[in-house]
Amino acid sequence: MSGDLGPRVAISAAQKFTAKFADVDLVLVGNEQQLLSFSSVKKLSRQRISILNATDIVAMDEDPLHALRHKKNSSMWLAIECLNNNLADACVSAGNTGALLAMGKYLLKTFPGVERPAICKAMPVEHGQTYLLDLGANTNCTAEHLYQFALMGNILASAATAAPRIGLLNIGTESTKGTDVIKATQELLQNDSRLNFGGYIEANRIFSGDMDVIVCDGFHGNIALKTCEGTARFIAKRIQAIFKRNWFSRLTAIFAWPLLKQLRVELDPSMYNGASFLGLQRVLVKSHGNANKKAFLQAMIVAREQVIQKVPVRIQQALSNQSISSQQ
Amino acid sequence: MSGDLGPRVAISAAQKFTAKFADVDLVLVGNEQQLLSFSSVKKLSRQRISILNATDIVAMDEDPLHALRHKKNSSMWLAIECLNNNLADACVSAGNTGALLAMGKYLLKTFPGVERPAICKAMPVEHGQTYLLDLGANTNCTAEHLYQFALMGNILASAATAAPRIGLLNIGTESTKGTDVIKATQELLQNDSRLNFGGYIEANRIFSGDMDVIVCDGFHGNIALKTCEGTARFIAKRIQAIFKRNWFSRLTAIFAWPLLKQLRVELDPSMYNGASFLGLQRVLVKSHGNANKKAFLQAMIVAREQVIQKVPVRIQQALSNQSISSQQ
Repeated sequence: MSGDLGPRVAISAAQKFTAKFADVDLVLVGNEQQLLSFSSVKKLSRQRISILNATDIVAMDEDPLHALRHKKNSSMWLAIECLNNNLADACVSAGNTGALLAMGKYLLKTFPGVERPAICKAMPVEHGQTYLLDLGANTNCTAEHLYQFALMGNILASAATAAPRIGLLNIGTESTKGTDVIKATQELLQNDSRLNFGGYIEANRIFSGDMDVIVCDGFHGNIALKTCEGTARFIAKRIQAIFKRNWFSRLTAIFAWPLLKQLRVELDPSMYNGASFLGLQRVLVKSHGNANKKAFLQAMIVAREQVIQKVPVRIQQALSNQSISSQQ
Repeated sequence: MSGDLGPRVAISAAQKFTAKFADVDLVLVGNEQQLLSFSSVKKLSRQRISILNATDIVAMDEDPLHALRHKKNSSMWLAIECLNNNLADACVSAGNTGALLAMGKYLLKTFPGVERPAICKAMPVEHGQTYLLDLGANTNCTAEHLYQFALMGNILASAATAAPRIGLLNIGTESTKGTDVIKATQELLQNDSRLNFGGYIEANRIFSGDMDVIVCDGFHGNIALKTCEGTARFIAKRIQAIFKRNWFSRLTAIFAWPLLKQLRVELDPSMYNGASFLGLQRVLVKSHGNANKKAFLQAMIVAREQVIQKVPVRIQQALSNQSISSQQ
């Protein structure tokens, strides 16, 4: 119901998602009247897609704690509750991130030892993708937190990669560099034989593909992710400006159009939409607030994959063996 | 003498620099024998450029404390000492950053109240440039440190902009966001009437040009700067790959060559080379280790500008009025 673009995007993505995957059913949670006013909803297969009515909405700029206290009839709350009622295996939302995090934590609970879920996202890198976590849920982390992020990211990445390389974000690669927390984390990661720890990695190597998982506290991850978005947008604007500068460049742009389009496709952030809240006992995925249909679909694909991979239960196992392994 | 490319780059830049600016003389500090072996050195005007012999070199990977203790005959040490001996008004080096910081602090001293100089660099943004500091010298900052960075960045930016807008890097723009240190810094900045404080800024807006100065702790600044470098390199590689993919794209690349070259010029990091160590009592500028001639020249231009603008003495004034103003 919320997100920057309202329910239309989720509905179109839902259509596409059920067409693409025969193994999924969907529950659309929101204002039933409003949802039924979309002609596309009427076309949806009632066997595969049902509607759960919600009378309230969490606003994009609403204080998360306010939402947690007062929005028990919101689409967000009821959608998350579907997981507890066994009405669904995963929940995807493009709504208010803080509220989703707060409600997710309250309703779904974290695994023992996990204080707050970590936000994790796949980034496009040279030859593949790299999972970066945490992206902003935990702004003040202990070494134990960062170690947990590594264990959880490892589970997520191991679906596609055997023995994923785990990197620890730092401002240098020498062992003397970094804060005390980062140095202590390095020790924990080195001593866990289940992890393929690759050492420190600097932010200019995030896209190198050297690591399959990069671990950092939420403040650092948020800065890295947003700087990356900002840089990409800045460069895209420069390219646009240059190709529009005069008649010669406009003519060139016509010839180069297929290539520029290809560049746009390859760098399209919607291909990497879908941030996971790892450490929760169920699968909860956050779509970007201004996700288009393709991007929202991608977030749903991320959620489906985690259900298939049984990510939560495998995270639980990894975390419960944590104390034993870190003493080895 | 050090830097990734050795003295050749500095020598070529020196030639260009003296040709460009009639108001500067240069001292090349390094192994005299080696410097004189460059044919271009023989062509340099002996009235404008002199050589100061140094028998030792600080290696790029040398431990800064080791360099500080044992490299008193190094080109880096002697070059910085020129500032104390009134042989020079500013020093530029492409060498080991940590060693330059340590020697700079030891030999030139910081102003009272400044624990460590802040590393500050201009970034290209939409319609101009933005100064970002600190970029890695101070990984653990108090609100007082960040406030000092704002005062110092303000002096640097006010050479080009009246009442520069000062932003504080954070992971959100709401007043509830961020660490306690960041919230306390916001109060200090708001209460100093000399500063045009623009509030919190997120990392995806660094390039927006909304702010003339962006203040952050050295860990955050380092991540932002390096993520930006990494993203730009990643995108450049994607562009290259796309334009080389097949005969059509190669042909297009020939037509688009002038535009691609223009893009490269506009995004050329050498145009923004030259990081300043603010808070030192004299002008010390760090060139990127692998700077080419154009980039090294740019670092020298940055140094000259700071001498002309009397940046150190103005920083001293700003810092000494600090306690009064923050009580206003």
